[in-house]
Amino acid sequence: MNIVDIIAKKRDKLALTRQEIKFFINSLVHHKIEDYHASTLLMAIYLNGMNEDEIVNLTKEMMKSGDVIDLSDIPGVKVDKHSTGGVGDKTSMVLAPLVASFGVKVAKVSGRGLGHTGGTLDKLESIPGMSISLTNAKFKDLVNKHGIAIMGQTQDLDPADKSLYALRDVTATVGSLPLITSSIMSKKLASGSDTILLDVKMGSGAFMKTLDDARTLSKLLVKVGKACGKDTRAVITDMQEPLGLAVGNILEVKEAIDTLNNKGPKDFTELCINCAAIMLTQAKVTDDLNKAKEMAIANLKNGKAFYKFKEWIGAQGGDTYYLDHPDKFKEAKHVYKIKSKLAGHIKEIEALTIGEAAMHLGAGRLNVTDKIDPTAGIVLNKKVGDHVKINDVLCTVYTNKDKVNDILKTIQKAFKITLVKIKQPKVIIDYIK
Amino acid sequence: MNIVDIIAKKRDKLALTRQEIKFFINSLVHHKIEDYHASTLLMAIYLNGMNEDEIVNLTKEMMKSGDVIDLSDIPGVKVDKHSTGGVGDKTSMVLAPLVASFGVKVAKVSGRGLGHTGGTLDKLESIPGMSISLTNAKFKDLVNKHGIAIMGQTQDLDPADKSLYALRDVTATVGSLPLITSSIMSKKLASGSDTILLDVKMGSGAFMKTLDDARTLSKLLVKVGKACGKDTRAVITDMQEPLGLAVGNILEVKEAIDTLNNKGPKDFTELCINCAAIMLTQAKVTDDLNKAKEMAIANLKNGKAFYKFKEWIGAQGGDTYYLDHPDKFKEAKHVYKIKSKLAGHIKEIEALTIGEAAMHLGAGRLNVTDKIDPTAGIVLNKKVGDHVKINDVLCTVYTNKDKVNDILKTIQKAFKITLVKIKQPKVIIDYIK
Repeated sequence: MNIVDIIAKKRDKLALTRQEIKFFINSLVHHKIEDYHASTLLMAIYLNGMNEDEIVNLTKEMMKSGDVIDLSDIPGVKVDKHSTGGVGDKTSMVLAPLVASFGVKVAKVSGRGLGHTGGTLDKLESIPGMSISLTNAKFKDLVNKHGIAIMGQTQDLDPADKSLYALRDVTATVGSLPLITSSIMSKKLASGSDTILLDVKMGSGAFMKTLDDARTLSKLLVKVGKACGKDTRAVITDMQEPLGLAVGNILEVKEAIDTLNNKGPKDFTELCINCAAIMLTQAKVTDDLNKAKEMAIANLKNGKAFYKFKEWIGAQGGDTYYLDHPDKFKEAKHVYKIKSKLAGHIKEIEALTIGEAAMHLGAGRLNVTDKIDPTAGIVLNKKVGDHVKINDVLCTVYTNKDKVNDILKTIQKAFKITLVKIKQPKVIIDYIK
Repeated sequence: MNIVDIIAKKRDKLALTRQEIKFFINSLVHHKIEDYHASTLLMAIYLNGMNEDEIVNLTKEMMKSGDVIDLSDIPGVKVDKHSTGGVGDKTSMVLAPLVASFGVKVAKVSGRGLGHTGGTLDKLESIPGMSISLTNAKFKDLVNKHGIAIMGQTQDLDPADKSLYALRDVTATVGSLPLITSSIMSKKLASGSDTILLDVKMGSGAFMKTLDDARTLSKLLVKVGKACGKDTRAVITDMQEPLGLAVGNILEVKEAIDTLNNKGPKDFTELCINCAAIMLTQAKVTDDLNKAKEMAIANLKNGKAFYKFKEWIGAQGGDTYYLDHPDKFKEAKHVYKIKSKLAGHIKEIEALTIGEAAMHLGAGRLNVTDKIDPTAGIVLNKKVGDHVKINDVLCTVYTNKDKVNDILKTIQKAFKITLVKIKQPKVIIDYIK
């Protein structure tokens, strides 16, 4: 078997066998092929696609390219969720303790933010003392003791994905369904949970711009997860406007705290309750999705979710004083209010524009090596569907940077106002299982 | 401008601009992009193609990536020909002096053989003393003084093609029309002649297996040549069976000598006369192709072509004694006669099989670093259309290797014999101008 023949096969639109895919991934990880071999094959996959068997095999071989965390000695169903990345997406911070507050084991390996989308790890690290660099043993220990842990991906988890992603990023081969699917699912499978809930974001602030694309990806993710023996489901959720109100690390932690105290924004709370309910049924706490929703609402109201949140953050070294006193978090040097120049109804708040603006304010990374300012970001004062008068505050901007006039102008332009009354968008657009 | 955007454009089936192609070739030659960028773009070009403007621009930029030989101060039309490579293709050795015997300037940059196809340089080097490593200045000087020179491609001629070809070879992107066309034409354009005649081989022993493919490539080559301001024409010629009788370096030199003395094989002589006639019209010696053919035949008969051949070989350091006494050339240690086991008519002599067998006997290279045995090879005693009796000699095999039984069996099998009478194939299948 040799890599040139494998490239030629995919070039000629033929399906690769399990053995050929295994040869490719093994050769890649052990540096037995050159980057130009891998990148050429990636372009052939991008243009000629892969069938479901090939995607399942690619996912499995990528998963097996490094550590596969074994959680089987922890009793009960271990659940996991993954979001394809959005603006203001602090869901994991609420969802994980909310589900764990029912005794369900939440074991989540998470990522950092890049570009206009934030990462759960960066948000968690803005809590003083919080550590997300866990060994696999410590991770399992926390799941065992507290029923919840979130850690950063180690170098030894899915090294094939790291190599492939690095190449895709510089060869215009990121946006390929087989490659996106195998990248997401191989990492999820390697992190050892029994069930997976995928939150596929859709809209201007997400990778999937259209409902068709989001549905295609969701169905593929679910199929591949099931083919690998996991209870896998997906929700397609709105990312036309930012999720909730806060965009930026400390700002989002504060919103998560509010939400866990049942004082969160309507759209974000709704997303958390619905996802928690699905995960509770995946964990077989109940078969009844409506009942599961009521249970989730109850644990937001009765403080159990927030209590589990504090237990979790404390167990990973975070200073829980801040969770009870969120006003003590550091605040940015500059605070600007962006006011409406028009009266009317908010038709759109461009998520991509807001995400990129937050990044430029310091909340995110343009390059993987950039340092994040945890205080920077944007808090929306209005959402799509809201009525505004002239000079109403549209949003509040936080930054330590001095010259941000251009960014403020861009943020202003992200708000589209119309005279026509606008309905609030639904946050959950579809559910695929 | 950056390479990732250029890859993305071709990935999305968009046409690249002249500036984008220039950026790609410049970045490649100056090592400002990585091999994985180039190989990924090559696969996108392979799968999504290029329009004629793109191919012309790619050809021009490749040509300009290194030395462009300027022959403009040599008076008269400078003609060149190029073959896409076949088995027993010793055409240049006859055609160049034949055309030069009319005072037409022949300035040819040539290549070495690889795989089952031989290279003109290797054949010429089997003449003792013959040097094909010329400087550009010496090359021009010879063309000026003797009206004829053939040299090997220097490192400084078309370095973009060298980089691209090396990558294509290991990434399954060789067989792409835009890439084949630009590779051939950029080298031809860089070698400075005014006119180009392309001999596009077609059949089992050639890169183009079907007439459709050969026609498509020929038309594209001619279009690109014309778009670059050169009188460019193409002949499509048969490569189902080897050309002429001899396959192997010294064996082919001897056949060239025979042919220049008007004692060559019918098919090969016919090809040389027809190509010479086209080149004479390209050089404006006459407008009348039939007249040009008669002229070519005359110079084979009257010894002028052979005289020019000796002048040329002598000028490049070759020992002309051998040309007058070809029996003095070294001969291989072992000579085998392959005899027919059947009576009937020769239907086919698989050119690819014969070419590969000759290579294994020592006449060619499997890898670029392999050393060639100039005495090794095969001489056909029968051609397609010939009648054979049992035990008639089909071909004679020359080698210095000791264990060649398997090769001999393979050669035997290359001859397909039938009871039905078979017509001799036409050597020139089409002429495109």
